[in-house]
Amino acid sequence: MSAVPFSKISTPLNALFATIGLLVVAALTTQGLTGQERLVFELLLAAIWLAYVLQLSGTLLSRRRRLSGEMTALVIDLLAVLVPAAAFLFVGSRDRDLYCAIWLLKPLRDSTFFRLLAKVVANESRNLLGVTSVFGIVLFGAALAGYIIERDVQPDKFGSIPQAMWWAVVTLSTTGYGDEIPQSLAGRVLAGLVMMSGIGIFALWAGILATGFYEEVRRQDFVRNWQLVAAVPLFQKLGSAALIEIVRALRPRIVPAGAVICRKGEVGDQMFFIVEGRVTVATPDHPVELGAGNFFGEMALISGDPRSATVSAATEVSLLSLYAVDFQILSSSSPEIAETIRKTALERRGGPPKE
Amino acid sequence: MSAVPFSKISTPLNALFATIGLLVVAALTTQGLTGQERLVFELLLAAIWLAYVLQLSGTLLSRRRRLSGEMTALVIDLLAVLVPAAAFLFVGSRDRDLYCAIWLLKPLRDSTFFRLLAKVVANESRNLLGVTSVFGIVLFGAALAGYIIERDVQPDKFGSIPQAMWWAVVTLSTTGYGDEIPQSLAGRVLAGLVMMSGIGIFALWAGILATGFYEEVRRQDFVRNWQLVAAVPLFQKLGSAALIEIVRALRPRIVPAGAVICRKGEVGDQMFFIVEGRVTVATPDHPVELGAGNFFGEMALISGDPRSATVSAATEVSLLSLYAVDFQILSSSSPEIAETIRKTALERRGGPPKE
Amino acid sequence: MSAVPFSKISTPLNALFATIGLLVVAALTTQGLTGQERLVFELLLAAIWLAYVLQLSGTLLSRRRRLSGEMTALVIDLLAVLVPAAAFLFVGSRDRDLYCAIWLLKPLRDSTFFRLLAKVVANESRNLLGVTSVFGIVLFGAALAGYIIERDVQPDKFGSIPQAMWWAVVTLSTTGYGDEIPQSLAGRVLAGLVMMSGIGIFALWAGILATGFYEEVRRQDFVRNWQLVAAVPLFQKLGSAALIEIVRALRPRIVPAGAVICRKGEVGDQMFFIVEGRVTVATPDHPVELGAGNFFGEMALISGDPRSATVSAATEVSLLSLYAVDFQILSSSSPEIAETIRKTALERRGGPPKE
Amino acid sequence: MSAVPFSKISTPLNALFATIGLLVVAALTTQGLTGQERLVFELLLAAIWLAYVLQLSGTLLSRRRRLSGEMTALVIDLLAVLVPAAAFLFVGSRDRDLYCAIWLLKPLRDSTFFRLLAKVVANESRNLLGVTSVFGIVLFGAALAGYIIERDVQPDKFGSIPQAMWWAVVTLSTTGYGDEIPQSLAGRVLAGLVMMSGIGIFALWAGILATGFYEEVRRQDFVRNWQLVAAVPLFQKLGSAALIEIVRALRPRIVPAGAVICRKGEVGDQMFFIVEGRVTVATPDHPVELGAGNFFGEMALISGDPRSATVSAATEVSLLSLYAVDFQILSSSSPEIAETIRKTALERRGGPPKE
Repeated sequence: MSAVPFSKISTPLNALFATIGLLVVAALTTQGLTGQERLVFELLLAAIWLAYVLQLSGTLLSRRRRLSGEMTALVIDLLAVLVPAAAFLFVGSRDRDLYCAIWLLKPLRDSTFFRLLAKVVANESRNLLGVTSVFGIVLFGAALAGYIIERDVQPDKFGSIPQAMWWAVVTLSTTGYGDEIPQSLAGRVLAGLVMMSGIGIFALWAGILATGFYEEVRRQDFVRNWQLVAAVPLFQKLGSAALIEIVRALRPRIVPAGAVICRKGEVGDQMFFIVEGRVTVATPDHPVELGAGNFFGEMALISGDPRSATVSAATEVSLLSLYAVDFQILSSSSPEIAETIRKTALERRGGPPKE
Repeated sequence: MSAVPFSKISTPLNALFATIGLLVVAALTTQGLTGQERLVFELLLAAIWLAYVLQLSGTLLSRRRRLSGEMTALVIDLLAVLVPAAAFLFVGSRDRDLYCAIWLLKPLRDSTFFRLLAKVVANESRNLLGVTSVFGIVLFGAALAGYIIERDVQPDKFGSIPQAMWWAVVTLSTTGYGDEIPQSLAGRVLAGLVMMSGIGIFALWAGILATGFYEEVRRQDFVRNWQLVAAVPLFQKLGSAALIEIVRALRPRIVPAGAVICRKGEVGDQMFFIVEGRVTVATPDHPVELGAGNFFGEMALISGDPRSATVSAATEVSLLSLYAVDFQILSSSSPEIAETIRKTALERRGGPPKE
Repeated sequence: MSAVPFSKISTPLNALFATIGLLVVAALTTQGLTGQERLVFELLLAAIWLAYVLQLSGTLLSRRRRLSGEMTALVIDLLAVLVPAAAFLFVGSRDRDLYCAIWLLKPLRDSTFFRLLAKVVANESRNLLGVTSVFGIVLFGAALAGYIIERDVQPDKFGSIPQAMWWAVVTLSTTGYGDEIPQSLAGRVLAGLVMMSGIGIFALWAGILATGFYEEVRRQDFVRNWQLVAAVPLFQKLGSAALIEIVRALRPRIVPAGAVICRKGEVGDQMFFIVEGRVTVATPDHPVELGAGNFFGEMALISGDPRSATVSAATEVSLLSLYAVDFQILSSSSPEIAETIRKTALERRGGPPKE
Repeated sequence: MSAVPFSKISTPLNALFATIGLLVVAALTTQGLTGQERLVFELLLAAIWLAYVLQLSGTLLSRRRRLSGEMTALVIDLLAVLVPAAAFLFVGSRDRDLYCAIWLLKPLRDSTFFRLLAKVVANESRNLLGVTSVFGIVLFGAALAGYIIERDVQPDKFGSIPQAMWWAVVTLSTTGYGDEIPQSLAGRVLAGLVMMSGIGIFALWAGILATGFYEEVRRQDFVRNWQLVAAVPLFQKLGSAALIEIVRALRPRIVPAGAVICRKGEVGDQMFFIVEGRVTVATPDHPVELGAGNFFGEMALISGDPRSATVSAATEVSLLSLYAVDFQILSSSSPEIAETIRKTALERRGGPPKE
């Protein structure tokens, strides 16, 4: 049995494994489990651990061949195998199951989202740090004021600054457990101000994260689209200014094998460029296959007619969508592209390309 | 009695029906209802059900004629009728009223907003999934840490990871019921960190949803305005670049029949293009009617004079507003449009069009 | 004694009156007031009422002269006088003081912010309504599910849908009072999902309001700046395209009489155009006054020298700031404006204007 | 021992000092401290106080030399020394430790973030004030309604408007302590509306703060980049329009001494301009040093080849990154810059610059 395929465990499967594993870890901590239930759960953990061992060996084997820098994935794979093994060998109590919580790291392994998030946090670190320090200052100030105001009223709850700080953090984050509540009028006015400050601080936090996220996504989308567009022959003769126009107008999408991309008779609002993979066009006579560099669905943009054929993905296809509205904009700024699309459309219909 | 009009139950009426129906369902679950009250409520439910039957038959009849793809509406109409009927026939207990809760789906029937929302979620699914997985990881990590820290202090509340997870989700979402509260210092520091993470995660969530929503709205607005502008004769001679400029500058508005659009003597800051419907201009001599493709209120942009006549909607009118400020911008980039508007304005005043 | 000045009660004073009045109303509802305290409070209310009577008569007098459409202000002024008077005459109990709460409307009287907010809500009404209906649907769905799951576990708290709805709204808004808490596992999973939905819904809400607000503010700023710029002689010869550039670059500010606008020796990063009012330039020889249409502080942009004189506001001045960075941008797009500013600057220094 | 270096305590150290000091102040308020622990804590406070005295004297000494306007820093340094000293001398009780909380001000001393935040708040003050007044109005309205609805049901909790206002602020901020909860149906409907209003108000708040923050950051970034670009000789011959293009494209970064900026053999996606400091290029023969005004890594943009040498920071370096994508955009709009970079790149490779 070859271990290599396991190194290609797709992200969803990996997430599923980790989710099951962690739920089992959680379940094992509940009281009143029968011995049998416990055994089933332990076996599940062992099975997932084995899968991870195979995945690790796969990663190691493939690593020998291509020495690229996927260090993080390797480290995570190693930890996912070694930590539970070490816990099993050296930790006596039942707590050893808890060490499987290291599998929390697994979803970080292939995630582009976490890389994106890390970059956003790095980009905005100065502002995030600034807001966090505002948070700290307001927190301490609120705790100090709460302590001074309420220490005589409720010595058991506001008797020291650390205690008051617990109240302050619960209030500042508008969590409001309700275990420590100011009783005096001054304390309540303070609480109102703390709640308002909290919302202001979290508004800043949210604004910084949301804006930073949005900007990074836009930048990464642009880079990816640029690379995709460079692979479409139609666009390769164009200058960089025209390319930028197109990159801004096109929207990438991945379609799984077998899925229908557009259905005959529907009114379409977009055309498609094939970047990778093949699609099947179900023409009346016999199905036609189109591959990378071709485009289809263009009549929707030119005549507004309903789709003349159903197109489905023969393999997983990477497409670029061009919406009717963007086509209008593109036509006015890059007439040559629009012209090429129009000509091809007319040729396909059987008529000669008219100027 | 024809059932067809019922298929055209307007969205507000539909929402009203569903709201009443659901309130009745809620009311029927309360204790201490007299038999009479119960009867009235049941009859109300039956009446709404009958209205829905009529609506369904209307939908079915109209469907025979135009076979377009409003499958969702049909399915919802069917469910709204069949589910309560089935419950009435086969469910013995009083719980059968609860099945009328299927009417919750009714407002989704004609709503453009839900379609918009679904598109936003689809567009942003990868990022939303990413944030949700961050949420899951932080949630499990917090529960694990809370369990380890607090299990000896409060074995009844933090005695297992599932219990600790309840605390974690209540804290991470800053809901803070207050039924499980960490007591140890470490637990409280952890809680503070969890609250801060929660706000960060929800900030990302909010940022992604808000940005995605905003972009989709802008895109849909552009498409709609484009279609509206294409219907105005004045703009049909223009190139697509100029059309884009105009589409960006115009703001659509719907005015109900009978409403006054602008009042004589007021200072106006916008002119109007009629896309659909008719307006009545109350000129001194006799009222003039303007229809689709006409425009009025242009003197506000050219001379700044107060409105010379009151204009009201003769039918429901779909208008495009052009604000004075946008007119300035438009004039500088598309002088020909501004010129056409100026000429027409002078002609209407009775003077000859001057260059 | 003339009542007219009272119609000009500035917004801050109006807000102060209303605040005091409302605090007094609040104080009058507390237990344990001595008769004397009560008398003082009642007298305060009477004093504010009298001020409002004067303000109303002022509004009425001034109204006779200029019949503009400030209907809202008049209605608010009338209500603020009539409602407490009617309550005093016809309501017997102590509750009559509560009717002074009508003064809550007073701050809406001259507020540009409330008009702005109303416009944002009107603009975004469709989307806000859509999110609100999502809120309603999720709320009912959560209540229904909560009722079905928990009704047997806690019949006193989840015994009917209305009761479960109270839990749902408290959870969906992440308020979390903690009076109704699901106990079963299914109920807690439901609660977690409701919290997450709540945050999603409020994210949409926030995104729509924030975006709508931002767009409306930008639009109103542009209109206001445009009007201010049109009043500066230097800019009156320019075409509308150049005017747009300037309007985008200038930032308006109001400086109260007596305030120092820039101080001798400081390094400046902006110059100022006077739209209204007068400033005093403290030159070595004798103070010079500049009025509407003049500009100053331009050396900061041209040479980067520190301010050569202290300039303070002789009256309340309305200024437009042009930052050094924006000046660079403006220079490249509208060289003629930059040239005029440079010439004037050199003339002021005593040297002849060089090309 | 010279005190001067202490005036240069870096911001992180300053933050560390303040954090320790404040934690000690908090710890000193807890019960059950042994005399020894108390002594250690007091000594720690004294040590930090001494450090601050040295820092103050350093600030004063350096101040004699350069009389720039860092008034705030001086005031903060003075307060940080004088307030604890005064408390030690004149306050008898143990509360005198609390006066060290004045050190909360220390992080504000050199923070650019607080200056940024202050500017945002100043810019947006009108809107923030507007939202705050909406908050106030809704708060009072909710309290009044809650009082009227619930005063008979729960006279101990809603017996006066101030009491009801406590409930209103806790609910409006969605904190939800759970100490005051409406019991009647009307009160619960009111509570639901208050929660929804609260979220709306805080959405506005968040939107204003986030937008204002984002705009101010963008403005400040532009100013800083402009200053950095003006220091690069390559760009000094360009017109301001081209400079703006470049400033928009460049991204600044600071690299600490010794860090590797790019590694031989890696595929690069950006080139670097040195603004300040020096870098070491590890060429095969002997390391070459590049200083301010030079650039490197340009082959990544022109040929897409992997990095030909490892470059590390000899000193702390301030760099501007130009990404490959931005270079494409820049090339199309400012061909002369791209040409200069290309020529230099070819010269470095040994070949003659070709046109």
